[in-house]
Amino acid sequence: MKIKLKSTERVDDLQIKGYKIIQDTNKFCFGIDAVLLTGFIKARKKDNVLDLGTGTGIIPILLEAKYNIKSATALEIQDESVDMAMRSICLNELDNKIKIVKGDIKEADNKFPLSSFDLVTSNPPYMINKNGLQNNNIEKTIARHEVLCNLDDVIRVSSKLVKVGGKFAMVHRPHRLSDIMYLLRKYKLEPKRMRLVYPKENKEPNMVLIEAVRHGKSMLKVEAPLIVYNNDGSYTDEIIKIYGLDN
Amino acid sequence: MKIKLKSTERVDDLQIKGYKIIQDTNKFCFGIDAVLLTGFIKARKKDNVLDLGTGTGIIPILLEAKYNIKSATALEIQDESVDMAMRSICLNELDNKIKIVKGDIKEADNKFPLSSFDLVTSNPPYMINKNGLQNNNIEKTIARHEVLCNLDDVIRVSSKLVKVGGKFAMVHRPHRLSDIMYLLRKYKLEPKRMRLVYPKENKEPNMVLIEAVRHGKSMLKVEAPLIVYNNDGSYTDEIIKIYGLDN
Repeated sequence: MKIKLKSTERVDDLQIKGYKIIQDTNKFCFGIDAVLLTGFIKARKKDNVLDLGTGTGIIPILLEAKYNIKSATALEIQDESVDMAMRSICLNELDNKIKIVKGDIKEADNKFPLSSFDLVTSNPPYMINKNGLQNNNIEKTIARHEVLCNLDDVIRVSSKLVKVGGKFAMVHRPHRLSDIMYLLRKYKLEPKRMRLVYPKENKEPNMVLIEAVRHGKSMLKVEAPLIVYNNDGSYTDEIIKIYGLDN
Repeated sequence: MKIKLKSTERVDDLQIKGYKIIQDTNKFCFGIDAVLLTGFIKARKKDNVLDLGTGTGIIPILLEAKYNIKSATALEIQDESVDMAMRSICLNELDNKIKIVKGDIKEADNKFPLSSFDLVTSNPPYMINKNGLQNNNIEKTIARHEVLCNLDDVIRVSSKLVKVGGKFAMVHRPHRLSDIMYLLRKYKLEPKRMRLVYPKENKEPNMVLIEAVRHGKSMLKVEAPLIVYNNDGSYTDEIIKIYGLDN
């Protein structure tokens, strides 16, 4: 299929099922976060998934590739990301499975049927709006900082849209863990599984992967540490496997 | 100093400042949990400490040994533990620094002046009362299961007794992390520092060390993983250092 690209856009090979993704080198490109989240999630073939703040659509595309999910709806507020995501879905001929929708996370509970998704995912902005350096690039700022939505919005809306007993999975920064745990419980999404991602085995973690169940019982399984790099700077075997580079 | 021992009691050397502790081999003996907690805490010379559920007094004795704290009050509900703790304090000639008090954690906020401690510590019972096997030994059951007090009690009371800006530090099980985070924030003890303890580097963690500040700002520092055993079954260098076995 022939897809038009803008001059600053490129097509990256996702190394799985021949899937590709269109990204703009001047905008926000997906990182290891989204890849690790899709490796952490154990989605099922029957799952109807919602991804909140999908950017260029990396999470639903990888979930389809890895777990052959039934369908996904992916919400994104930024026009250019929506446009790239839609073209990537066409390029991968996934139109029958993945639907890209433009819209605001804060109002997603008015847009989709309540309690209707088996799994809600998100790789939301990490930075509290008032803190930290904001990027001069407005697209990157919206993707990284809580400008248009905050963690409370993401968790509140997810709780309304996921089925009772359904799952919510997110990647975030460990320094927000207390906020994450508090808000999940506040909105009846009980954390059931957590994994910390450490750049090296003797370093502080820089990502947390967390899965919660709507109306689940209190009992958190904290998994073994996920180490990204060996001491010699090479990727660990587990990271190579998650990236599918072992095939 | 000559201290009387019961037939089932023994005196263990704490490997620091010549301090010893009296324990009863039929009752609950302190574990690695208490040692790791006192290594995790960074107490100061000027600190007035409260330890809730002190058992045989291991935490205040180690805090005094490691940080030369100003004073400690240690609350314990079980008569036999109170008695052993008092004799250990005598044995180590720490009567002028550490005071053992018999009493109930749930009522500690009626026993001590509110907002008066620089640091409150606890190695509380880990197990929810209704869940898990209880020990036939009532003393061990009280020490391990939430029979006489639960996590909500420990955190609620700690929040009342620690100064604003003072610290609360606890060791617990990772499967309770969601409860811990939720309750800490509920009672205005903001988690500021956390470390997970992994038996080996590829295993799930079995302890969590956490420090919170009363009325602190939201920003959690998750530290590098603390690994207990090398792959060959020997202690890691860090554990040897915390136990003071490197001297």
